Amino acid sequence: MRDRPKQLAHLEYLGDAAKYANQIHTLIPKCALLENFSPAEVRLLAHFMDVYRAQAGVEVLAEGEGGDFMFLLLEGRVNVQKRDKGNTPQLLATLDAGKTVGEMSMIDGEPRFATCVAVEPVTVAVLDRESLARIIVEQPMLGAKILMELVLMLSQRLRATSDRLIGMLDESVARVANVV
Amino acid sequence: MRDRPKQLAHLEYLGDAAKYANQIHTLIPKCALLENFSPAEVRLLAHFMDVYRAQAGVEVLAEGEGGDFMFLLLEGRVNVQKRDKGNTPQLLATLDAGKTVGEMSMIDGEPRFATCVAVEPVTVAVLDRESLARIIVEQPMLGAKILMELVLMLSQRLRATSDRLIGMLDESVARVANVV
Repeated sequence: MRDRPKQLAHLEYLGDAAKYANQIHTLIPKCALLENFSPAEVRLLAHFMDVYRAQAGVEVLAEGEGGDFMFLLLEGRVNVQKRDKGNTPQLLATLDAGKTVGEMSMIDGEPRFATCVAVEPVTVAVLDRESLARIIVEQPMLGAKILMELVLMLSQRLRATSDRLIGMLDESVARVANVV
Repeated sequence: MRDRPKQLAHLEYLGDAAKYANQIHTLIPKCALLENFSPAEVRLLAHFMDVYRAQAGVEVLAEGEGGDFMFLLLEGRVNVQKRDKGNTPQLLATLDAGKTVGEMSMIDGEPRFATCVAVEPVTVAVLDRESLARIIVEQPMLGAKILMELVLMLSQRLRATSDRLIGMLDESVARVANVV
């Protein structure tokens, strides 16, 4: 029996994700984290995850909050929002089944970067840091595979974000140059 | 005997990094990747790395080039540069001993994001993807540890880069708001 993260106390607990292994398996083509996983590996991983349900309008993650877990969206969509300087939530993305959220906080334990709100009823499979640590010890090849996929995903996001930043810096330089 | 990456053919090959394990060990406090490594783990890792020397002015990595390896700076400093829209190299950072470069390309095989030029004679220890794959198979706990540290580093860089991007987007919004 795993401890349930207190940040998920307001969600409905549906039990061990092992029961959802087939459903998770159908999401593989839509899931960057699992794209190289075999059905057997998905089943193995599912044993280390728990499933929760949230109703429409519920905050599944809250910007600035602690919490060392990530989730995989099994059903439904969530809006990802971040507050701007004026404290107004800005929509960053809408995610659907197969997408994963919260990998960074699972690993580094830092506060959440953004808020996730259920657009409709959603089901999520949760993996926390303690379970990841257990996977690494008990199933080291599976652990290495998860970590390798996480590195790949973060690496791609970092490239994309850096490109956008460089693009904006270029524009600023161009703007200054036009003014002078 | 490992294959040497062809992108390093212009550097002087100094041999297996096992001879440099003590030197690598002294860099632990300066090295985010190795900060949680024991001396025994550093020795183990060193067996999977090769050491090269480059003279001042030599490009150790070239922006846009392929190459699935990273390096740890053992001695000397490198400038990290990226070309702006006008094709002029812009200095992004100067790195010294203990810093690591090229982790993203090691993992995803994508072209290098930036160029690294030796400011003075430098010695680097190189880890390529094939060696990382061997570590994961032969020393899974060490492999998981390296991957975990890589995830942590990328996660921190992604947070920092995203914060800068959000800051610039906020400024742009503020600028537009001031204009209107």
